[in-house]
Amino acid sequence: MQCADEWSCISETGCDCTPFSSWAAVCTLAHILADTMTDSQTDGAAAESPMEFYEKVTAQGEAVRELKTGKAPKEEIDVAVKLLLQLKLDYKRVSGQDYKAGCPPTDSPASGESVPAAAEDGDDLVDPWTVATSNAKGVDYEKLIVRFGSSKIEAELIERMERVTGQKAHRFLRRGIFFSHRRVQQPCPSALDMHQILDAYENKKSFYLYTGRGPSSEAMHMGHLIPFIFTKWLQDVFDIPLVIQLTDDEKYLWKDLTLEDCHRYAVENAKDIIACGFDVNKTFIFSDLDYMGMSSGFYRNVVKIQKHVTFNQVKGIFGFTDSDCIGKISFPAIQAAPSFSTSFPQIFNGRKDIQCLIPCAIDQDPYFRMTRDVAPRIGYPKPALLHSTFFPALQGAQTKMSASDPNSSIFLTDTAKQIKNKINKHAFSGGRDTVEEHRKHGGDADVDVSFMYLTFFLEDDEKLEQIRQDYTSGALLTGELKKCLIETLQPMITQHQERRKQVTDETVKQFMTPRKLDFHF
Amino acid sequence: MQCADEWSCISETGCDCTPFSSWAAVCTLAHILADTMTDSQTDGAAAESPMEFYEKVTAQGEAVRELKTGKAPKEEIDVAVKLLLQLKLDYKRVSGQDYKAGCPPTDSPASGESVPAAAEDGDDLVDPWTVATSNAKGVDYEKLIVRFGSSKIEAELIERMERVTGQKAHRFLRRGIFFSHRRVQQPCPSALDMHQILDAYENKKSFYLYTGRGPSSEAMHMGHLIPFIFTKWLQDVFDIPLVIQLTDDEKYLWKDLTLEDCHRYAVENAKDIIACGFDVNKTFIFSDLDYMGMSSGFYRNVVKIQKHVTFNQVKGIFGFTDSDCIGKISFPAIQAAPSFSTSFPQIFNGRKDIQCLIPCAIDQDPYFRMTRDVAPRIGYPKPALLHSTFFPALQGAQTKMSASDPNSSIFLTDTAKQIKNKINKHAFSGGRDTVEEHRKHGGDADVDVSFMYLTFFLEDDEKLEQIRQDYTSGALLTGELKKCLIETLQPMITQHQERRKQVTDETVKQFMTPRKLDFHF
Repeated sequence: MQCADEWSCISETGCDCTPFSSWAAVCTLAHILADTMTDSQTDGAAAESPMEFYEKVTAQGEAVRELKTGKAPKEEIDVAVKLLLQLKLDYKRVSGQDYKAGCPPTDSPASGESVPAAAEDGDDLVDPWTVATSNAKGVDYEKLIVRFGSSKIEAELIERMERVTGQKAHRFLRRGIFFSHRRVQQPCPSALDMHQILDAYENKKSFYLYTGRGPSSEAMHMGHLIPFIFTKWLQDVFDIPLVIQLTDDEKYLWKDLTLEDCHRYAVENAKDIIACGFDVNKTFIFSDLDYMGMSSGFYRNVVKIQKHVTFNQVKGIFGFTDSDCIGKISFPAIQAAPSFSTSFPQIFNGRKDIQCLIPCAIDQDPYFRMTRDVAPRIGYPKPALLHSTFFPALQGAQTKMSASDPNSSIFLTDTAKQIKNKINKHAFSGGRDTVEEHRKHGGDADVDVSFMYLTFFLEDDEKLEQIRQDYTSGALLTGELKKCLIETLQPMITQHQERRKQVTDETVKQFMTPRKLDFHF
Repeated sequence: MQCADEWSCISETGCDCTPFSSWAAVCTLAHILADTMTDSQTDGAAAESPMEFYEKVTAQGEAVRELKTGKAPKEEIDVAVKLLLQLKLDYKRVSGQDYKAGCPPTDSPASGESVPAAAEDGDDLVDPWTVATSNAKGVDYEKLIVRFGSSKIEAELIERMERVTGQKAHRFLRRGIFFSHRRVQQPCPSALDMHQILDAYENKKSFYLYTGRGPSSEAMHMGHLIPFIFTKWLQDVFDIPLVIQLTDDEKYLWKDLTLEDCHRYAVENAKDIIACGFDVNKTFIFSDLDYMGMSSGFYRNVVKIQKHVTFNQVKGIFGFTDSDCIGKISFPAIQAAPSFSTSFPQIFNGRKDIQCLIPCAIDQDPYFRMTRDVAPRIGYPKPALLHSTFFPALQGAQTKMSASDPNSSIFLTDTAKQIKNKINKHAFSGGRDTVEEHRKHGGDADVDVSFMYLTFFLEDDEKLEQIRQDYTSGALLTGELKKCLIETLQPMITQHQERRKQVTDETVKQFMTPRKLDFHF
């Protein structure tokens, strides 16, 4: 981890209009990791050798076998297996080799080069494919902000948004669910942050929204809705166009799926997204597989980005190895391209100066850190970003909700009964073991998944605060808290299902056809 | 350079329908290199360390400086500079670092991994970007066939082509200019060679042709015409559709050019290609930058290929390093994709079983070796290949004609006078120093560039043989031989220029519009 200028390359916070001679974003992550690790060595978070990781994997493999032999509860085994898989990934990242039982790491010539893609800060691991922490309260977002070099959304920014738009801030902002953004210290025409977005809005200068989803299955769960719920609110408040990317190509590259399946999932997912209530006159939803073959601007931008990013850089940011397919290696450019308005000539008439605001979960930030670094070098403005926290799994905030683990998730297709059963059975509780103890000592709302879900979905601030107080004091029992959540989610999901039923193939086609939107720049 | 099965992985000659567990094509080149090198160690072609390459570059740099100081002839300096650049490339390939005077190679962890992309067999270097040899007769193609694992086009195959098509073989075949093909020993539905192409043709089963060009400038030279002249003949003889790829994206990625320039060069080059006489009803010419955004099939095939090729593999085949941009790394899939008929749904109605024959210069073979390896793994037939030799530079067959060196090339835009002057002034002669000596000992047609060019362009076999004999005996003087070449080329180029003038923007548009072709499969 060598870099010409250890400090300047961290400063995504400074105005970086001037092209970097080395690729800052790579250094950013690598250095912040290095710094964090050095700072926290006393906490046991020192860098480890491939051999140490190898031993960890071996030990965890043993632990899983013991749990299985001892017929431990399924959830316990699942968590242990998840940790095992994570450790194997870590091992591969550090050693450049796949873990093989009985084959300790060789002195790989690559090991000296490999840069961990995601930091282990304490136990938090956050990258576009994995979110894991040992903390029941979830990922330490304060630390993540430092590590990613982004900025906290302060009360002052939220107040300004309310002032400028004349609207009450969305509950996701009020409650720190969209908690981080990318800040630019000096005004700069080619860099952009939320403050400048607001400046622009006040000056009647417009911008557009970009968000997306990787369609890995037909089934979307509640966590998938978070960016779309918030994006819809932004679209309503600012009255601006929105593009939504469905990365069916990415899912094909990463998963054992056919192209046809990935494309079908994209179309199915589009129905759920449309059901969030987007304005068809201001929203373009696209499958990469389709739109790449329909746009005169998209592929040109992809190639421009791909010319300005090296393998070393994506290796540093995403942890790719020499064994990864060239499709994965070049994919980041495809997620980056929609950040530039020339990718949508039909919407922006070929203008390249329309600025872009990207609301997304913070695990997607590496893509856009890369994008922001490339932007000035290809003559485009940097996109602004608003980052959300993760939506916790039912089992607890150690991981995010995952469609591949049905018991961790409440799906948008679940019945009222399934919702009730899943919450009652699986939602990790911060309550005490007995009613008596709970009444006496109170519950822990900070680790209680039902309470966390309410912070996402219960609109009424006062009611939410009352619940928190009552649960903490012991006046509200776990069963009562769960009931409150069930009664919040059941109608929400039912309404979503009803709206989704209204979405015809014709409607999907409308949203997914490249066309002019009802907006003039 | 380790591989599970040293020999099986060389055998592109065997039927390799079964997917390889490791990526054969990578091993193929790497091993053949290793073998060749070991075989020829007594010739001094042993593998060298980064330090040895570093010293070679330093020594050659000194040599160039001495030549310049001593005001040596320009041609001599040019050759020395070319060799210097080549050595620098070799150094980078082996060390993973750019050459810097006074900075010997560090112990790069990458150096142990790097595999030379192209062999130095004696002094021959052949890859998609460089052709260089120290032999005045040009590259040793017999050795190259062994190294690349292809097969010589034997007299028997040429006779069969004549029998099957009822046409005399093209002079490029008769004279060993198209000299190599990829052979399959056992009949196999998903692999294809020229024999099977002929079987198919006899059975009224059709196939299509694919060739291409990298549009690095507006100016095309005579060497660029070789694949197109031959492809036109194949199209006429077999009466089949043809697709021509203009890799404007590649040129943007490799050169210091704008996207707009590369695209403009593609359109300009298309005019010269059209002037070769292709049938507009059976020919589709496309710019990658345009067609990627116009086809429902092209990008899908690109992604399929990109999923099945790793960075390790392209590193082995093309010599890419970690410092290369991700665009270069993923580009080979874009040159591979047109080998599959589903990249052109408008022509082949979505059929995936139409077989493809690719005529190209042998330096393009690495792309298609990769393609042939991937094909069965994504359910497509392998393309068949016909390889040509290189068109020598005016200065001699040590390098091929290059548009970036105007004195090495006869351009399609040159006037009759320029052609005459270039040949008289620059064409390397195999003649003797004085007329007397020449009359007495005769000239050497094997190293004489004018004679080489006549083998490409003089149709009359008997006349060519007479010239060879007269030159070798001394009856024909160098000036007379050059005159003969000038009189062959001048009308050829003039006619080309006249045909090119007839090519209107409308005609270009016709050729470059994705559409049905006049052919039914």
